[in-house]
Amino acid sequence: MSSQTRVKKDKEIIGEYETQVKEIRNQLVEQFKCLEQQSESRIQLLQDLQDFFRRKAEIQLEYSRSLEKLAERFSNKIRSSREHHQFKKDQHLLSSVNCWYLVLNQTRRESRDHATLNDIYTNNVIVRLAQISEDVIRLFKKSKDIGIQMHEELVKVTNELYTVMKTYHMYHTESISAESKLKDAEKQEEKQFSKSADLNVHLLRHEDRPQRRSSVRKIEKMKEKRQAKYSENKLKCTKARNDYLLNLAATNAVVAKYYIHDVSDMIDCCDLGYHASLARTFRTYLSAEYNLETSRHEGLDIMENAVDNLDSRSDKHKIMDMHNQVFCPPMRFEYLPHMGDEVCQVSAQQPVQTELLMRYHQLQSRLATLKIENEEVRKTLDATMHTMQDMLTVEDFDVSDAFQHSRSNESMKSVASETYMSKLNVAKRRANQQETEVFYFTVSTSVIPACYR
Amino acid sequence: MSSQTRVKKDKEIIGEYETQVKEIRNQLVEQFKCLEQQSESRIQLLQDLQDFFRRKAEIQLEYSRSLEKLAERFSNKIRSSREHHQFKKDQHLLSSVNCWYLVLNQTRRESRDHATLNDIYTNNVIVRLAQISEDVIRLFKKSKDIGIQMHEELVKVTNELYTVMKTYHMYHTESISAESKLKDAEKQEEKQFSKSADLNVHLLRHEDRPQRRSSVRKIEKMKEKRQAKYSENKLKCTKARNDYLLNLAATNAVVAKYYIHDVSDMIDCCDLGYHASLARTFRTYLSAEYNLETSRHEGLDIMENAVDNLDSRSDKHKIMDMHNQVFCPPMRFEYLPHMGDEVCQVSAQQPVQTELLMRYHQLQSRLATLKIENEEVRKTLDATMHTMQDMLTVEDFDVSDAFQHSRSNESMKSVASETYMSKLNVAKRRANQQETEVFYFTVSTSVIPACYR
Repeated sequence: MSSQTRVKKDKEIIGEYETQVKEIRNQLVEQFKCLEQQSESRIQLLQDLQDFFRRKAEIQLEYSRSLEKLAERFSNKIRSSREHHQFKKDQHLLSSVNCWYLVLNQTRRESRDHATLNDIYTNNVIVRLAQISEDVIRLFKKSKDIGIQMHEELVKVTNELYTVMKTYHMYHTESISAESKLKDAEKQEEKQFSKSADLNVHLLRHEDRPQRRSSVRKIEKMKEKRQAKYSENKLKCTKARNDYLLNLAATNAVVAKYYIHDVSDMIDCCDLGYHASLARTFRTYLSAEYNLETSRHEGLDIMENAVDNLDSRSDKHKIMDMHNQVFCPPMRFEYLPHMGDEVCQVSAQQPVQTELLMRYHQLQSRLATLKIENEEVRKTLDATMHTMQDMLTVEDFDVSDAFQHSRSNESMKSVASETYMSKLNVAKRRANQQETEVFYFTVSTSVIPACYR
Repeated sequence: MSSQTRVKKDKEIIGEYETQVKEIRNQLVEQFKCLEQQSESRIQLLQDLQDFFRRKAEIQLEYSRSLEKLAERFSNKIRSSREHHQFKKDQHLLSSVNCWYLVLNQTRRESRDHATLNDIYTNNVIVRLAQISEDVIRLFKKSKDIGIQMHEELVKVTNELYTVMKTYHMYHTESISAESKLKDAEKQEEKQFSKSADLNVHLLRHEDRPQRRSSVRKIEKMKEKRQAKYSENKLKCTKARNDYLLNLAATNAVVAKYYIHDVSDMIDCCDLGYHASLARTFRTYLSAEYNLETSRHEGLDIMENAVDNLDSRSDKHKIMDMHNQVFCPPMRFEYLPHMGDEVCQVSAQQPVQTELLMRYHQLQSRLATLKIENEEVRKTLDATMHTMQDMLTVEDFDVSDAFQHSRSNESMKSVASETYMSKLNVAKRRANQQETEVFYFTVSTSVIPACYR
């Protein structure tokens, strides 16, 4: 191996190491960037959530106020109508009017609940989000400080490795050079030996001998010196290699520890409490929404109960009670005998007896005919009424289908477009209902006056 | 009894009857008024309900649009941010970001559901109310027609009673007059008899006899005539009285039947289907509201599930996976032997052996000390982390109290005023939390660099 290729090899080795260290440093920089991006994303997310809930709170307040105004408008109307129309004073006793009042109550309840939602968003959820944002900023800073310390340590360790590697290389170079010098000396010594052996064979001149001896001693001295130098360099090299090998193992351990544990710990530091605090914020939001729902549900149940209690019979009696003097039956007409007439019963002696009996029989037969006729009419009326009742109590109020959108992602359909409430269906049903009604009235009025005849 | 008092008595009787009939007629008029008022009240109620639901539908639409706009604003932001920042592309995989997306989903769901509410109010509830209003008007008209017939019958019946009563009075008057005339004739006859008896006792003149006989015959004839007249009038009177008595009973029966049954039937006619249709309308409203609630609840449950799944560990791993090249551990540093140096292990022969052993023992004792120190620090850190975890997971998110207003009628309290979220409490908790955090970091950073030393 020539000296030139040797130098090149050294440079390559150092270059390879330097590249590897550079890559690690780049990674460390990128890791900070990545954590910074994550923090920024979180701060952005928290800012978005705050903006979102600020606007949602406003929407809740607008909604709440609209509902309140709506309820108030009609409550005022009811109040003034009660003050001005005596007969409306007890209207709330009627089951239908009661339902209307409960619709207004429910509206007021919704209004209050959405105002509460506004309050919770504004004074609780947003405050929490702002705090989490502060926490993210503070913890990122602290984590970065710790990260910087760890990175500095990594740099220090890799620099040290570089140093000990170079030291090893240096001592190894020196060791090689000492070795070659020693080998040179050994070669010279060997040459000297073979020369003196030659001379011994060929008659050596006496005056030449001391000269040759001093030269041999000189070579031996040099060889000893070079031997010492070589041993010294070899020891230095061994120590340097040991140092390098130990440092190498330590550095690999530190780097591995950093990548496997410390980076993760650093991220944990950034994350400290983030998920827990965010969860508590969302749970506050959920608690508010669930409670709103419970309150709504309670109100709707009250309303449903009132609808169950819609009762025409009881309302009719209440109306008749309210207007008692209008509906109470009058006194019977008393028999008013003329001028001391003491007869106060139907006189059925002769000669009126025959006539009375005749009239009685006529009436009896008339009554029998009417009874039969009425029975027929009654049957028709009952059947018609039954049909009408079926029409009137048909269960056409379930609108669940309209809320199915969320399970499938299809575009919503208008409720009125195809269900029971489609214009065609409504028109058909109403025509049918009114036809039945007309028939009912025709049949029943054909009978009512008969009672009075 | 003088003739004058007799006339007065007749007038009184007639007057009493007329008053009674007048009162009944007033009642009938008042009954119509009352039914008309009820119908008007109903039409007014139905009009109010329509106005109410029209406005409520508008409010739903406004609310729905506000929510939609809100969700859209942030969805667009997310979309454009994803397009422009590569690293944000997979953010939705993070559990915290997922929660935020679900908040937006829930907002969109609410928006759609309130739009559906608007649709149902407008195209179903209001349509029904308008139909009920038509029905009330039509049925009131029909019921009034029937009522008018019944009232006419009542008037006819009472008029008839009046007529037969007057007839009875007339015939009774005539009967009394015929009776008194007959009694006059009987008195004259008696007078004639007592006169002729006197004459028989006192020697009666012969030429006077025929004259007396003719006068007796005349009186007898008159008496017979008057007797016949009286009998005739008495029969007429009896017939008239019978007629009156029978009519009286019939009239009382008709009036009683009207007040006890017919008025009630007439009101039933007005009411026909009113309560049933109103109930169906309210049930449509309830069905819509209950379904809205169910849909909300479903959405909130999805959201709650996502909050339950907030997981810092999994998010950390996702982030590290997303930036794999930044976080993947680098290659180990390889041992780079110098220039064909074949030794690649720590050399532990003499003379370095002693030195190595010494260093080894030094490191061992250093490690033992560090282990003890670390154990202490670890205990402190664990305890501090425990305290922090307690702070971070405190269940401070239940806001049920804020929705209690509906059960008691007290004025609402602000959520932030006295609960966990009061300014004082928040400040205290945050100070406490940050103090603990600072302590944790101080302790942990005192240990971290030691790993690298």
